[in-house]
Amino acid sequence: MALRIFGDSISGNCLKVKWVADFLGISYVWTETSVLNGQTRTPEFLALNPAGQAPLIILEDGRPLAQSNAIITYLAQGSELIPADAYDRARMLEWMFWEQYSHEPYVAVARFQMHYLGKTREDLDEKLLVRGAAALKRLDDGLAASPFLVGDRVSLADVALVAYTRVAHEGGFDLSDYPAVKAWVARVEAALGIA
Amino acid sequence: MALRIFGDSISGNCLKVKWVADFLGISYVWTETSVLNGQTRTPEFLALNPAGQAPLIILEDGRPLAQSNAIITYLAQGSELIPADAYDRARMLEWMFWEQYSHEPYVAVARFQMHYLGKTREDLDEKLLVRGAAALKRLDDGLAASPFLVGDRVSLADVALVAYTRVAHEGGFDLSDYPAVKAWVARVEAALGIA
Repeated sequence: MALRIFGDSISGNCLKVKWVADFLGISYVWTETSVLNGQTRTPEFLALNPAGQAPLIILEDGRPLAQSNAIITYLAQGSELIPADAYDRARMLEWMFWEQYSHEPYVAVARFQMHYLGKTREDLDEKLLVRGAAALKRLDDGLAASPFLVGDRVSLADVALVAYTRVAHEGGFDLSDYPAVKAWVARVEAALGIA
Repeated sequence: MALRIFGDSISGNCLKVKWVADFLGISYVWTETSVLNGQTRTPEFLALNPAGQAPLIILEDGRPLAQSNAIITYLAQGSELIPADAYDRARMLEWMFWEQYSHEPYVAVARFQMHYLGKTREDLDEKLLVRGAAALKRLDDGLAASPFLVGDRVSLADVALVAYTRVAHEGGFDLSDYPAVKAWVARVEAALGIA
């Protein structure tokens, strides 16, 4: 059986998995799974992923794996998307953990609430705006002297962080305020072939 | 120069790094760095970690590395704390990313606000309590049929998740409600020698 991906096409976390599979030429069956319609909370889905979150993959042998950044690390093992150098690999993971803790909960959540739940920027919890802006500033600083987040070539760190950064405007953030980020988004999209 | 760890002894994220280094017999110099006193926000610290977060390590050659789960993955490479099997390693990372996204922001934050900022349980944002309890329930279910989170031996997944689970009572959670978790905490503490 082919690799199966349960994902929601509006979710950056899910698109990370699609992009990596496409980039590496891994074939898969995509099962569209709507978060908004509660399809990650059905008994059938919860049996596969008790955390009730997408993305989820089912390996060829039937074993499940969840968490976007764990999935892409698994799919990309041994590929050019993971640096060969141990320190560079550690920095890649540093960015990926930072993404889930300090970027996604603000940049992605602001976008979800505005773009999909119909809130205005004024409706948003101010914490989302302040911390989302701080995350984009931190990213801008990190990219000031480097074309990609870890060294000279695209890695999973870029995949993880571009997912919601490239749609940050849908959460009311203006990437023109972060010129290094804006240039990097185009660079990563081109490198991954998702522009 | 020896490995240097900047950490706050009240922080589970920082203790993860200490436990792994101690377990593996890695020598280090610990620099106590108080989050409450703003020591992660000084210009000197921000120059080492622009994210302004502890823990931070400085490698023997002077290069910095942040994010607790990235640090312990780096320190433990090639050791028994990381499963040799690729799928088991992926599950380990799945738990570690889940920890930072769905457990720490509720279980650790509730504990920080009650135990260190002096709030009462009634003062807390209800979201912390509801999502913290959901995270502990998910952990309890995950441990129902397994002594450790990934297979039969302790791994970094257990290190990451025990850090704040073992002090969850300081955030008003009662581990007696989660019997598999309670037994697992003692098991992990014994395996790591931190009981």
